[in-house]
Amino acid sequence: MTAVGMELRVIGLIRTPYPGIADCPGQPWTRLAESTIEIVPEYLEAVDGLTAPMRLYVLWWAHLANRDLRRRRPTADASPLGVLASRGMHRPNPIGLTLTDLIAVEPGRITVRGLDCVDRTPLLDLKPAVAIPAQYAL
Amino acid sequence: MTAVGMELRVIGLIRTPYPGIADCPGQPWTRLAESTIEIVPEYLEAVDGLTAPMRLYVLWWAHLANRDLRRRRPTADASPLGVLASRGMHRPNPIGLTLTDLIAVEPGRITVRGLDCVDRTPLLDLKPAVAIPAQYAL
Repeated sequence: MTAVGMELRVIGLIRTPYPGIADCPGQPWTRLAESTIEIVPEYLEAVDGLTAPMRLYVLWWAHLANRDLRRRRPTADASPLGVLASRGMHRPNPIGLTLTDLIAVEPGRITVRGLDCVDRTPLLDLKPAVAIPAQYAL
Repeated sequence: MTAVGMELRVIGLIRTPYPGIADCPGQPWTRLAESTIEIVPEYLEAVDGLTAPMRLYVLWWAHLANRDLRRRRPTADASPLGVLASRGMHRPNPIGLTLTDLIAVEPGRITVRGLDCVDRTPLLDLKPAVAIPAQYAL
């Protein structure tokens, strides 16, 4: 089921040191390389006020994903698991979510540490990560 | 710029106690009400293996958002800020992201605590939230 009007816009291009899926870190925090994000000119104004350092969620489009997969084995000898019960890239809406460290902001270009997607991944969204007050921690 | 093939699929319907935007909590952790998510039958298999309790990111489509806004004042007397430097709902790709507490899983229906979107919001994705090992914390 695809709803009218739910099409995504490419707001930037992510440049990482990982040319292919096999090069990406298995968990984003195990290889904290720097990546740059080139903001599409039309959206330059939307990053006004973004200031380093800051923890920043980066949402990206996993353009290489299989969107029709429903279950998969996390490892070769494990039981099949629903794709929504895992963090893999193959899912109905392949939106990647990585908590990064924003380290520099230049005009039209930001630098983050900790991204785990392949080079030339489309950027969907950026969200400052707010720490949840301890008394409300889930 | 809209890319071919980047259309989203509605995989569930979120039922919260908040009929309108004005009813939603300002910060998700300030009102930890229970919400239910009805999974679209086509995607039932994709939630296999989701088990409560678990911390779970819920990604939803902010269907009431203004996607063409680039900057806004966070408060009436503040300077305008780019929408990507804020957590507001109005952004080019209005993907809502809430860290919730999964408290029950029934066939076709899951119950979470902490969602902050309006009732009848389309569900886009679920991601188990993995704690980052302290030695890798950003």
